[in-house]
Amino acid sequence: MAGRTGPRGEYAKTQRRREEILAAAFSVFGSGGFLNSTMSEIAKQAGITMPGLTYYFPTKAGLLAAVLDERDLDAVSHLEGRRGVELMRGLVEVAARDESDDRLTQLFTVLSAEATTQDHPAHEYFTVRYRLILDSVRRALEDAKEDGALDEGVNPVIAASMYAAVSDGFPLQRLYDVAPVSQATMITSFFSQLLTPLGRLQLVGGPADA
Amino acid sequence: MAGRTGPRGEYAKTQRRREEILAAAFSVFGSGGFLNSTMSEIAKQAGITMPGLTYYFPTKAGLLAAVLDERDLDAVSHLEGRRGVELMRGLVEVAARDESDDRLTQLFTVLSAEATTQDHPAHEYFTVRYRLILDSVRRALEDAKEDGALDEGVNPVIAASMYAAVSDGFPLQRLYDVAPVSQATMITSFFSQLLTPLGRLQLVGGPADA
Repeated sequence: MAGRTGPRGEYAKTQRRREEILAAAFSVFGSGGFLNSTMSEIAKQAGITMPGLTYYFPTKAGLLAAVLDERDLDAVSHLEGRRGVELMRGLVEVAARDESDDRLTQLFTVLSAEATTQDHPAHEYFTVRYRLILDSVRRALEDAKEDGALDEGVNPVIAASMYAAVSDGFPLQRLYDVAPVSQATMITSFFSQLLTPLGRLQLVGGPADA
Repeated sequence: MAGRTGPRGEYAKTQRRREEILAAAFSVFGSGGFLNSTMSEIAKQAGITMPGLTYYFPTKAGLLAAVLDERDLDAVSHLEGRRGVELMRGLVEVAARDESDDRLTQLFTVLSAEATTQDHPAHEYFTVRYRLILDSVRRALEDAKEDGALDEGVNPVIAASMYAAVSDGFPLQRLYDVAPVSQATMITSFFSQLLTPLGRLQLVGGPADA
């Protein structure tokens, strides 16, 4: 619609350039971690000069934050408005989508481990992210309990934490090429063993969904 | 018994020095990963000169291998000769012992993520380690099934992989200070939900043990 040379064209070009940089940063951070990566490596991969890169992203930490935010916005919008078993199903869907991208798996695995040191620029990001995940999955499990979809004896706090552990730990087996199933199948199995037969039907999109 | 200056004294001194180096490497690798660490950092931390360090360990990769082997020998000897639920209980005990050492947790978390790239010197180590873990836990679950200690419907291959995922993923929550329970409690909860009431009794060391 907008001409290539008008303000909309400029905006589109800026956006495209920004996305190219984020894609390059994604791949560089994902293979060597954040600490090991340099801005000039990212500029090279993005096919841009260093001044060009720092025009868009003045610091490496800011670039990292943008890469992480981009990815989360996606997942959050997919899960919005869901509760109980529906939210668990949403998590399976996000897992299915994410695992098609090996670089994403690698990025989150390497960064979340690297950022465990207090002074890493993504330490706060991962701490907040964990609190959000533990909290929303715990609530989904409590809602499932109210709906009669959760097995007796499941502790929602421990089960939410176990979900996060499976979800973070399993990608390592995929990256070492020893995983017996897909990430989506693993997350489905995990939730299934917490649910009643009714809950399991809802999880795989059975009649309760119609 | 042996004199300080005799061959036994020399041997003891060499052993002590070796252990000091391994402890220093442990701590340096654990805080920044392998790629980010330097031999001179390790030498400094161990209070030894660079020639002194390379006398014991000529390469950084060799030092890493020694650090990893040292730790595994310990766990393997603790689990030897166990089967079924007894082996699961052994894994809980190893978790309880390991989690008292934050540096160990940090080391394994950072290294296993960093070594997912094919050309990392510890890539083969972790691949072999995963195969061993998946295999021995699967066998323990199959044995528990024979003993009537495993719930119907548990798939030993998937459950073994889920165990490894929980065991690798949960330490991240501890390192970000958001874990609701200890690693030993988490592993106990995990196995509990796969076991029959009889199996659960064995897991916590009840009457079946006497």
